[in-house]
Amino acid sequence: MTDEEVLARIGLARVTEPGSLDVWAALQSASAVDVWAAVRAGAPWGQLGQRALDGLAARLEVCDPQQDLERLHGLGARVVCPGDEEWPDGLDWPPGVMSGDVKGMAPPIVLFVKGPHPLRAAALSSAAVVGARAGTPYGLEVAKELSFALAEAGVTVVSGGAYGIDAAAHRGALAAAAAPTVAVLACGLDQAYPRGNDRLLDQIGREGLLVSELPPGCGVTRMRFLVRNRVVAAVTQGTVVVEAAARSGSLSTAGRADDLGRHVMAVPGPVTSRQSIGTHALIRAGRPLVTNAAEVLEVLHPMGTYLAPAPRGTVHPRDRLEEQTRRILDAMPVRRPIGVARIAAAAGVPALLVQVALPELLGAGLVEQRDGGWRLTTLGAA
Amino acid sequence: MTDEEVLARIGLARVTEPGSLDVWAALQSASAVDVWAAVRAGAPWGQLGQRALDGLAARLEVCDPQQDLERLHGLGARVVCPGDEEWPDGLDWPPGVMSGDVKGMAPPIVLFVKGPHPLRAAALSSAAVVGARAGTPYGLEVAKELSFALAEAGVTVVSGGAYGIDAAAHRGALAAAAAPTVAVLACGLDQAYPRGNDRLLDQIGREGLLVSELPPGCGVTRMRFLVRNRVVAAVTQGTVVVEAAARSGSLSTAGRADDLGRHVMAVPGPVTSRQSIGTHALIRAGRPLVTNAAEVLEVLHPMGTYLAPAPRGTVHPRDRLEEQTRRILDAMPVRRPIGVARIAAAAGVPALLVQVALPELLGAGLVEQRDGGWRLTTLGAA
Repeated sequence: MTDEEVLARIGLARVTEPGSLDVWAALQSASAVDVWAAVRAGAPWGQLGQRALDGLAARLEVCDPQQDLERLHGLGARVVCPGDEEWPDGLDWPPGVMSGDVKGMAPPIVLFVKGPHPLRAAALSSAAVVGARAGTPYGLEVAKELSFALAEAGVTVVSGGAYGIDAAAHRGALAAAAAPTVAVLACGLDQAYPRGNDRLLDQIGREGLLVSELPPGCGVTRMRFLVRNRVVAAVTQGTVVVEAAARSGSLSTAGRADDLGRHVMAVPGPVTSRQSIGTHALIRAGRPLVTNAAEVLEVLHPMGTYLAPAPRGTVHPRDRLEEQTRRILDAMPVRRPIGVARIAAAAGVPALLVQVALPELLGAGLVEQRDGGWRLTTLGAA
Repeated sequence: MTDEEVLARIGLARVTEPGSLDVWAALQSASAVDVWAAVRAGAPWGQLGQRALDGLAARLEVCDPQQDLERLHGLGARVVCPGDEEWPDGLDWPPGVMSGDVKGMAPPIVLFVKGPHPLRAAALSSAAVVGARAGTPYGLEVAKELSFALAEAGVTVVSGGAYGIDAAAHRGALAAAAAPTVAVLACGLDQAYPRGNDRLLDQIGREGLLVSELPPGCGVTRMRFLVRNRVVAAVTQGTVVVEAAARSGSLSTAGRADDLGRHVMAVPGPVTSRQSIGTHALIRAGRPLVTNAAEVLEVLHPMGTYLAPAPRGTVHPRDRLEEQTRRILDAMPVRRPIGVARIAAAAGVPALLVQVALPELLGAGLVEQRDGGWRLTTLGAA
């Protein structure tokens, strides 16, 4: 992606709303530089008609992509575009596949990312853990425990950074310190919404990943929350709703996951609790009831998918490995040890698979642990 | 059923265990009098071999059916045999249909009943509400509220009279005072097990129905609990498990309901509660999650089944009625008002249907309410 393309996408993200179908459609058949030039010139382009362009005039006046880029760099954030190595899988779907109640359900055209992990690798084995802002003590405890256990199993917990269940999910995942947690915001990365979560969001930006489709300075709107939810649903393999009242926003995340064919799971609770009405409705509609991380993993990775076969025969250790395990071995460094997330990124496989493969590789004498990371042994490097 | 048949069945119930397959099989091709004579003579009969008969010798010595009958009458109880009007539907299934973990899953050969309602009519629209003896405060509340609402809807709540969920279910149903509640005991009707529930069981005997397969004096055994559960499952249209630990006895009731093709429903609870592990397992295995009485009714009577159609045209009121509603009208007395349960018994339809039909009949001017009961109006009797 050229610098001009990046600046053009920042400009488009600044003057249009996330998920705009017309902008996304224009970008399918033209470069961002061309579309951005047309928008700035007020010249209609495909579905991007005169009326839509007129509506962008006010925003164009105060739009300065170069300045936005500098602000992002000042925040320690980066710009990730479709086609970039870090662009997560799953962020592409045909228009019309989403049944959302708001317009603008096209895939993102750019992501602003802050945090010490490659986003695509972090999302390869991930689950959304979402729920009510007004979570009960029970729901908060379950969200935290569940996310802790998922992170321990190498699953990246993705949520919306909101009060209640979202925050509890991020906190549980951070406590495990085993897999990054991702907060997808409905505002610019510098906005730290909600304010009461600013320390949590700051920690996620340092230890996990903060992600947004909105340039710095943009605030939240009701529509942006709903449009944001499609990103949470799309980058993960499944969405777990921990607590949700009858019309909770977290049910919209579950709806988008449904639209995309992702797994939707729900945690039950007391039938006397308003905050479990939504999850019970999901279960009654046929979604799996889950009570712990093992049951979530079973849904995400049907039993056996990630089990390496037991070694057989007396051939050389490397030859006995499954193809994917060999790919993991091939991605390991000879000298400086690296962590699971970096191995997963290098091998292009989910972190969970790396975690399952490492004991086998260790047992085969092919890898060793050093300074909290992993590297090849002499045998493994041979 | 002749007096001799009744005495023979009491004798067989006294010397054998409830659910004995060999005794039940013998009764399929011979009268109870003949089978009882063979048993007393120690003469093998079909599957009732010499070895089984030898095992009954000690019990035969102290067996006195006439005395048992007098004790039953002294308790205010009656004997109900297959073929009797009061014998509930559903108590017949082919051998081998039950997957229970104890031998002896044949249908009952006799029932001892105490209470002011005809058992068959009471069971026509009924649900089992069962669960853990060690129910949590949450589970007890849900069992009570659910059973209250079911009884209000004309559904007979059947349970096992045990501590915990069972007792809460009976209490809820008694509080509604709208439909009888039935306790199926694993001991003789005079045993009031467990002792701590003696006042509750006494009230059920006066206002609801106490039912047992065991003659007076018989105590509980572990096997009798499990065998009793098949009666709870068989006489009801569905079983609702409110709370159950991983290996709760109430899951055996659900298992027998499954065996018989009855509905099995489960109430969810906190995933942190041991007493909800069993119900969550049922839901995960595909049983409907229910949170209230309306959802139970929807499972028992799929929507619309019991809705009388809205009146149309200007024909005579009686002619506009559905056939079943007309049957209810035909069962109504001209003079002395009677209650819903007696109307249901007379018409041979579930009490729920009577409750649904009465407002229509009232609106059509065909019936009237008098002294807490119902009777025909002049128009209805015309």
